[in-house]
Amino acid sequence: MESRLLARLTAYTPGEQPRDKKYIKLNTNENPYPPCPKIQKKKINAEDFRLYPDPDCRVLKEALADTLRVPPSHIFTGNGSDEVLSFAFAAFFDADNGPVLFPEVTYSFYPVYCRFYGLPFRETAVNNDLSIDFSSFTESKADAGVIFPNPNAPTGIAVDRKTIRRILTARPKDRIVIIDEAYIDFGGESAVELTGEFENLLITGTFSKSRSLAGLRLGYAVGNPKLIQSLEKVKNSFNSYTVNRFTQECAVDALRDIGYFEKRRDEVIRTRERIADELRKRGWDVLPSLANFLFAAHPTLPGEAVYRRLKDEGILVRYFDLPKTRNRVRISVGTPEEMKVFLRTVDGWNNDVSQLR
Amino acid sequence: MESRLLARLTAYTPGEQPRDKKYIKLNTNENPYPPCPKIQKKKINAEDFRLYPDPDCRVLKEALADTLRVPPSHIFTGNGSDEVLSFAFAAFFDADNGPVLFPEVTYSFYPVYCRFYGLPFRETAVNNDLSIDFSSFTESKADAGVIFPNPNAPTGIAVDRKTIRRILTARPKDRIVIIDEAYIDFGGESAVELTGEFENLLITGTFSKSRSLAGLRLGYAVGNPKLIQSLEKVKNSFNSYTVNRFTQECAVDALRDIGYFEKRRDEVIRTRERIADELRKRGWDVLPSLANFLFAAHPTLPGEAVYRRLKDEGILVRYFDLPKTRNRVRISVGTPEEMKVFLRTVDGWNNDVSQLR
Repeated sequence: MESRLLARLTAYTPGEQPRDKKYIKLNTNENPYPPCPKIQKKKINAEDFRLYPDPDCRVLKEALADTLRVPPSHIFTGNGSDEVLSFAFAAFFDADNGPVLFPEVTYSFYPVYCRFYGLPFRETAVNNDLSIDFSSFTESKADAGVIFPNPNAPTGIAVDRKTIRRILTARPKDRIVIIDEAYIDFGGESAVELTGEFENLLITGTFSKSRSLAGLRLGYAVGNPKLIQSLEKVKNSFNSYTVNRFTQECAVDALRDIGYFEKRRDEVIRTRERIADELRKRGWDVLPSLANFLFAAHPTLPGEAVYRRLKDEGILVRYFDLPKTRNRVRISVGTPEEMKVFLRTVDGWNNDVSQLR
Repeated sequence: MESRLLARLTAYTPGEQPRDKKYIKLNTNENPYPPCPKIQKKKINAEDFRLYPDPDCRVLKEALADTLRVPPSHIFTGNGSDEVLSFAFAAFFDADNGPVLFPEVTYSFYPVYCRFYGLPFRETAVNNDLSIDFSSFTESKADAGVIFPNPNAPTGIAVDRKTIRRILTARPKDRIVIIDEAYIDFGGESAVELTGEFENLLITGTFSKSRSLAGLRLGYAVGNPKLIQSLEKVKNSFNSYTVNRFTQECAVDALRDIGYFEKRRDEVIRTRERIADELRKRGWDVLPSLANFLFAAHPTLPGEAVYRRLKDEGILVRYFDLPKTRNRVRISVGTPEEMKVFLRTVDGWNNDVSQLR
């Protein structure tokens, strides 16, 4: 009964969503703050729930277009950016053209999509400091296209728009470049404005991080209308109504409260910088992050030990068991109060570190 | 930039969701009644929207398990039954085994999924009365599996459990049988209880019809835990969090208000029977429906003319331009008030039918 497609899959493992006890959750890069006041005070319009949502999300696309300063026809929306990425892998990568390229240290869903669609892929090297070595992208002779997050995950390291323009200029015009900007709002330079110039550039984004709406599921893509129409065709061959009514409404509310968005974003950035400093003072190696998380190595303990010890003490972080990442943990930026508990917890280890090795 | 996958797609066309004016909407089989009072009075818990939903929908699966009288491990949930069906096509049909079989008159998304996953398919004949000829399924020598809705769409014709058992008994045990029970609550006999006996039987269902929640997007599948685990693996290779928090909560509310569910279901059934009688009195040919719609032929006008004329007069129905269906329209069952307007409208045509031909 198992299809060949099923047999070749290795499912993505999302961060734990534990129900056994109450943790300080610094493991899935959720926003520590609730969504904007308008959503908090929202009265639902249940009468309309009996009706299908607008499959084209027109009102939402107009609001997004305003925010991103592109026409609505340049925007695609989906049930979280993971779904948008999945549709993009289906639409734009073709096994006949060669492997899909992405960095060896990056969002671990990319190889999963490749197996789903039967696409070969090549993981390109990263530099010693875990930054992406973009020469693999610009010097590639035959590939199906490239994808990378900016800032990258789980490192948090970002590249500026000048670098992205250089990559796009060097890449073949008939191969897609997907930049996954899930974390762009926390200090990175978005490449959205380059989509007008480069017809092979697709940017994806999400409401799960800077908009505090992970629970409602909304992602989007920005690009040339030809790319957007291709994504619509894939979507309409998979599920016509991917974004529910309530999420469409709340997302518009979130976009319109610019003041709240900026205030919360700035708070997350401030906390990130303070915690990075505090960890460095304590001898941790902390990568320079422009995301809402830190990828950091304890001075003596390997990542897994840090992860386990923190979990025992009621704090969840994430640990990736790969050669170049296993000395680190990824710590989502929580509230100042949560981060105080986090620091106090790691400070408590100083006396008994030796027994943990 | 276009992948081969993209090139082979022909997207599904959902029923119109017009925004130009206010129609009486009898075109997408939505429930004419709002969801249960608990949902109507619901206060949202916006604080939690910042957190990812439970990717396993455990509370929801427990409530569904109660309702369907199966263990929670026999249940899969997704972002509408279209998504659940899409995952099932990926997991259980394999091109190497032969074509996917489904009736020539059925839900038009099935061939769309086949193109998405590169699966060959064969449309099996229906009888003269548009009922499914199941001998194509029971006598097939080599196929990848079968799928059909019960009741069928757009006919509304249902088969009883005895017939389904007979089909399952005759079919090979290593080929999936998917029964799409989107409309089962309006009078059909569910085959859910047969999933304990037949490990190759998968039933899909939706909250869009009898539960009045089309706008919130929830579908599910019921089957042997091995089938469910396969669906989870496909889902986790596509999008980890497909059902948002708010939908998970509302769906539980909808399941628990059994009295409201039964009352609204009975009202829809009563209206359906009354309108079928009224149309037959007026010379229409109305198929025997156990769904929340009627598939009916006007005594003289072809389907397209009926569809256009109704649209001009503010009523939307659906019309399928295929040889065996083009003399009919599919009319969703609305409120008694909406159906009164519908009948009055078609009665108004009696004097000028000739000029429409």
